[in-house]
Amino acid sequence: MSLDYTLYYWPIPFRGHIPRFVLAEAGAAWDEPGFDEMLALKEADPLDQPTPFMGPPLLHHHASDTWLSQMPAITMALGRRHGLCHDPDLDLRLACDASDVLLEITNSHGAQMWDPDDWAAFRADRLPRWMRMHDRIAAEAGDGWLSGTDAPGLADLTLGALWHTMTDRLPPLRADLDAHAPALADLADRVAARPAIADLRARWDDSPWRYCGGQIEASILDMLERDDRQ
Amino acid sequence: MSLDYTLYYWPIPFRGHIPRFVLAEAGAAWDEPGFDEMLALKEADPLDQPTPFMGPPLLHHHASDTWLSQMPAITMALGRRHGLCHDPDLDLRLACDASDVLLEITNSHGAQMWDPDDWAAFRADRLPRWMRMHDRIAAEAGDGWLSGTDAPGLADLTLGALWHTMTDRLPPLRADLDAHAPALADLADRVAARPAIADLRARWDDSPWRYCGGQIEASILDMLERDDRQ
Repeated sequence: MSLDYTLYYWPIPFRGHIPRFVLAEAGAAWDEPGFDEMLALKEADPLDQPTPFMGPPLLHHHASDTWLSQMPAITMALGRRHGLCHDPDLDLRLACDASDVLLEITNSHGAQMWDPDDWAAFRADRLPRWMRMHDRIAAEAGDGWLSGTDAPGLADLTLGALWHTMTDRLPPLRADLDAHAPALADLADRVAARPAIADLRARWDDSPWRYCGGQIEASILDMLERDDRQ
Repeated sequence: MSLDYTLYYWPIPFRGHIPRFVLAEAGAAWDEPGFDEMLALKEADPLDQPTPFMGPPLLHHHASDTWLSQMPAITMALGRRHGLCHDPDLDLRLACDASDVLLEITNSHGAQMWDPDDWAAFRADRLPRWMRMHDRIAAEAGDGWLSGTDAPGLADLTLGALWHTMTDRLPPLRADLDAHAPALADLADRVAARPAIADLRARWDDSPWRYCGGQIEASILDMLERDDRQ
């Protein structure tokens, strides 16, 4: 099968699982280069990059030979091309929310490691607030999809990729999601169970990183272990 | 004149000037509530907010009585409604870039104050890289607009609102922009000179904050003053 796309991202779930879930549900064929190729492209001079970009993800659409950076722009472009974009305002607002949640849980992309007080405040306040916000939105889907169609659209896929991935990779947070956001947890599970997405997850190589990688992943795991001992 | 929109944002330029530039260029009529009303809405329970959101901007479109959060979603919605969205991939990618630049210059929205070493690294490396990235894009417009039309579109307005506002409010950075990104500086100036945008800027009340407000604004001004003394 010929490839539709190449997705440039680090070999971690985190932000990358949002376009990956969309690509999988769309039935697209894509590959991902290794870490070294990704790093070389990121560090190239902006004049030498295929499109000037600061950080991944970056998507190359082979048929049109176009390159696109920024996760929300990538998922919206995929959504339009593959018929998954049913409510552009909601779809995009959730992609931006997802970026913010991922920024927050990594303490600004690992700018600093978590300290226990800041983590405790995040887990008690901002994280449940994000969950409750998205639970209110997810509840509108009932037993169906926010897309209003018989398959998940971009809004569903984004919520699923954000919250299922987080709570699957960081299992202690699953209880938080169930407690604060039962409709969201259900929607996220249903997205994760879609055949192409379940297949992606089953084939995913967990090592060496589980979620966001690096020192900040170790810091989050350390915080969760402390919470568990208390 | 009846109002088309209410824009909820803090009384600072920063992120808010991106939707403001778009609203002004679109010829829309909008108002903005005061600080206290903004704060009350932000701190309300997600179930009581008009749409669940974490932080401003938030846009209320009166005719449809719809509410939208997240700056890129707001500018894309305005762009579609007012005929300013000519290349959705580029328009959205630049809105996301702008969010990242604003995050970086405020050291993750003021999570920490700048220290001189980190600021020096930012001003020597990441900030010029962003400028050079966007200069490559702006250069494609030549003496015209990225929209390819005879008036600026969303991509032009976003670049103008980001870079003109930053270098106008933090004047020492204008020399950085001129040095690293002459085409971008020119595009930003032409956007800022559009009659409705020039009028917005002339009427803007500078006090008490100049750019992003708060302690982090004071920290940036302190860093710029240190740089100037060296």
